[in-house]
Amino acid sequence: MPFQRITILGCGLIGGSFALALKQAGFAGEIVGWGREDALERAQQRGAIDRGVVDLAQAVADADLIYLSTPVGAILELLPQVGQAAKAGALVTDAGSTKVAICAKAKEVLPKNVIFLGGHPLTGKETSGIENADADLFVGAKYVVIKETKEAEEAEEEFGSESVREFLDWLRRVGAEPVVLDAETHDRAVAFTSHLPQLLSTALAAAVADETDRGELPVLLAAGGFRDMVRLASSPYEIWRDICSTNSENISRALERLERRLARLRARLQSPELAEEFEKAQQVCSLLKANDGRRNDG
Amino acid sequence: MPFQRITILGCGLIGGSFALALKQAGFAGEIVGWGREDALERAQQRGAIDRGVVDLAQAVADADLIYLSTPVGAILELLPQVGQAAKAGALVTDAGSTKVAICAKAKEVLPKNVIFLGGHPLTGKETSGIENADADLFVGAKYVVIKETKEAEEAEEEFGSESVREFLDWLRRVGAEPVVLDAETHDRAVAFTSHLPQLLSTALAAAVADETDRGELPVLLAAGGFRDMVRLASSPYEIWRDICSTNSENISRALERLERRLARLRARLQSPELAEEFEKAQQVCSLLKANDGRRNDG
Repeated sequence: MPFQRITILGCGLIGGSFALALKQAGFAGEIVGWGREDALERAQQRGAIDRGVVDLAQAVADADLIYLSTPVGAILELLPQVGQAAKAGALVTDAGSTKVAICAKAKEVLPKNVIFLGGHPLTGKETSGIENADADLFVGAKYVVIKETKEAEEAEEEFGSESVREFLDWLRRVGAEPVVLDAETHDRAVAFTSHLPQLLSTALAAAVADETDRGELPVLLAAGGFRDMVRLASSPYEIWRDICSTNSENISRALERLERRLARLRARLQSPELAEEFEKAQQVCSLLKANDGRRNDG
Repeated sequence: MPFQRITILGCGLIGGSFALALKQAGFAGEIVGWGREDALERAQQRGAIDRGVVDLAQAVADADLIYLSTPVGAILELLPQVGQAAKAGALVTDAGSTKVAICAKAKEVLPKNVIFLGGHPLTGKETSGIENADADLFVGAKYVVIKETKEAEEAEEEFGSESVREFLDWLRRVGAEPVVLDAETHDRAVAFTSHLPQLLSTALAAAVADETDRGELPVLLAAGGFRDMVRLASSPYEIWRDICSTNSENISRALERLERRLARLRARLQSPELAEEFEKAQQVCSLLKANDGRRNDG
């Protein structure tokens, strides 16, 4: 039986966008929101949720799908309460940016008659809140779903549950492309492609802030390249605090790698070997371009 | 007497765009291009130049304004020949990304009856060549012009020559905003806002390339933030080789600062002090936003 009621826990950028996207894609059931009262009011005004419920147990009680889209720390805190209130057979999923800690917690605290599927939509903005929600946020985005085995490239067909398959169908209907990974592989990969870029952007902006004088130099000379590189730096700290603390080993390793690369670049500034760094970097640019090509081809 | 003939040395992205911008802004004189024969043909086909001249002395001979827009290394090599061939009273300017080495060379090799004005348009793309030239490339861009004194914030009125004032007028007509700086201040500032972002982007892409496996992880999970951060990484090495070698001290210092910031971030991944890094970074984002606001207001 298809989902009749979906409850979104945390109606911010991701949760609000997912609700808007579901409606745009034709979801005809009820969407219930849970969160702070003012946020729920705004989510309802935007048409993302049908009604807001401030009591967690009540919000979750009859839901077929429970979608946790708060920051990672709050997801970890909510899971035990969700486990107590969810009905038998409900599918619980989350949109947290790190997966090992969340999947472990879910395994620990959720009852056996509730199905858990860790998830992570690889989309977002440097802004947050329902005001910035967008029904098209998931279009063209990879959406990692966690299969709890260490074997990579598990086929999607192996997911046992009907409700998991229905959820994956909804992901496709909102324009996302599901990618099945184990939690460890996910956390290692996004340390490089998501967490490292964020911290680099933060570090660049902070270094330039330290350097900025009363005449606003050097920021006065900022052009497009600099702006692109510090765009992420205005992302909300609260989200990144939780990501950094739940993926610190992988992020630490990625940062060390980058520090070594920078030191090497520094040593090579006047050497022809600098070319090797640019060539190596070009491999990734070419790979991204090839992937875009494949996507556009169909 | 206004410029009758302008010669562009190097009709690539910057030189080609400047020629197109001049024509769009109503320049009625002749624009001569110099460079490789095939590049000149394409520049003429695009309508950027009126004719191409392969011989440097001939290309420069009767020009009122000589605009050097090759990579920095070629500017340094061309200046002596330009000095020999330029007519008395000609204005020589350049669009090189570093200014100390170029201004010193110009002072050394140009005859007294030729006026030199170092310049640097703070605009560009990660692509190069006349194919990517754009008559609007300078719209809204800061355009640094070098006043050869160490006192910062020299008033533009102090430029002695009529032709320098005419050049500054053309900069405004193509949409740029002239900013007067000394060469040392310029090179120190762009090390942070232009050269550091480029090398960070290169280092990030290279680090991820090293990490990428046959299944294309982690690149497979790249989202918008990562793409923004590695966009610069596909910039042409030939241009950056010259920039790195002519501004290595400032760049080296900027890289060291950043390496220290990253090490500090790494040490703070699980600490509440991480918030300070995000707050510091936010200062630059707010400053950029305030500057954009002022620009839009008038």
